[in-house]
Amino acid sequence: MLDLTELVNIDVTVAYVWYAVLLIVKMMLMGPLTGMLRTKKKAFVNPEDTAPFGKGENAKKVHLNDLENIVPFLFIGFFYSFSGVSLSTALLHYRIFFGSRVFHTITYLLALPQPSRALSFLVGYLITFSMIYKLVMVGLSMS
Amino acid sequence: MLDLTELVNIDVTVAYVWYAVLLIVKMMLMGPLTGMLRTKKKAFVNPEDTAPFGKGENAKKVHLNDLENIVPFLFIGFFYSFSGVSLSTALLHYRIFFGSRVFHTITYLLALPQPSRALSFLVGYLITFSMIYKLVMVGLSMS
Amino acid sequence: MLDLTELVNIDVTVAYVWYAVLLIVKMMLMGPLTGMLRTKKKAFVNPEDTAPFGKGENAKKVHLNDLENIVPFLFIGFFYSFSGVSLSTALLHYRIFFGSRVFHTITYLLALPQPSRALSFLVGYLITFSMIYKLVMVGLSMS
Repeated sequence: MLDLTELVNIDVTVAYVWYAVLLIVKMMLMGPLTGMLRTKKKAFVNPEDTAPFGKGENAKKVHLNDLENIVPFLFIGFFYSFSGVSLSTALLHYRIFFGSRVFHTITYLLALPQPSRALSFLVGYLITFSMIYKLVMVGLSMS
Repeated sequence: MLDLTELVNIDVTVAYVWYAVLLIVKMMLMGPLTGMLRTKKKAFVNPEDTAPFGKGENAKKVHLNDLENIVPFLFIGFFYSFSGVSLSTALLHYRIFFGSRVFHTITYLLALPQPSRALSFLVGYLITFSMIYKLVMVGLSMS
Repeated sequence: MLDLTELVNIDVTVAYVWYAVLLIVKMMLMGPLTGMLRTKKKAFVNPEDTAPFGKGENAKKVHLNDLENIVPFLFIGFFYSFSGVSLSTALLHYRIFFGSRVFHTITYLLALPQPSRALSFLVGYLITFSMIYKLVMVGLSMS
């Protein structure tokens, strides 16, 4: 049986809070941005005119995608900070996830062609599962 | 005034983390599944052909329903693990909630007739309120 | 370097849990309410008849707006309770946020004219950023 106090490394949890705050700020900024893009879109009569910024119709979808992916990270990343992981490994995970979500937003804002958005989603998705794998391993070693 | 250290039972919090991780994995798997079902649906010309797997149009709704119900559980279940509840009572709550959400997904994947989906939603909803009731009782006893 | 144990003030975290539970209850009640309003709407043949309660089509949007704003608060408010903030300042933030979301729901239920809903959203949004500002300041003082 593992000693649970061994698992607490406050530096990792502090690192988690930094990345959690950054991700939440990014997510919160997307909301009004979505609204603005939608308004912009309505100002044009011809739907094709909106294509460059465009994606007004996709804005909500991208925002929901944020919610669906960042919320799991916020919980998993928090648990993960108590998994006895080293600071460097934790930072690697947090940074890759953060980078993937920033890139996901950029692909949307600049309307980059697929599979750029799909790939950025996938990287964040897989890094979350990497943290889940560690959690399950620690959980199994405890029982 | 209650002694707060009495309320910490690490076994309950560890049990919470297990069920939280399971629920997040289930929720994360729903995302790509939704996408695949939607793609599958588009492959058919006749909408009726899609009815058996069908529900392509409902996939997003079911996924949102997950988000709307699992996110409250993730917070309430976490607070609840610090409510001084016994491990067996906590496990009962966590397991019923987890079962209700798995069943909710199954009713959708197998396109089971209503009220199966409504009932699975209701069970998860009520068990969350059972945890909220305990939290309020503990909160009132503290003040 | 700040001593992290100085930052723990259990009274603030308990206050956070109270407001978190209240917000989650509010959010959970919106779900079935949304369903009921949608059913009510379908019962009318003439769309204009539904205008007073109306907003059946907006119900989902308002519910999503709840999810998009309350979830960031639940995380930020939790971190904020460990930022060394005084109980009175924390309560001020938690109460303003809670009030803004209750008012947001009321503007929707009573179909109050804009900008009442936009303003209630804005207040909650800005108070969340006020907490984020404090977190960033504490974070910078730690490094």
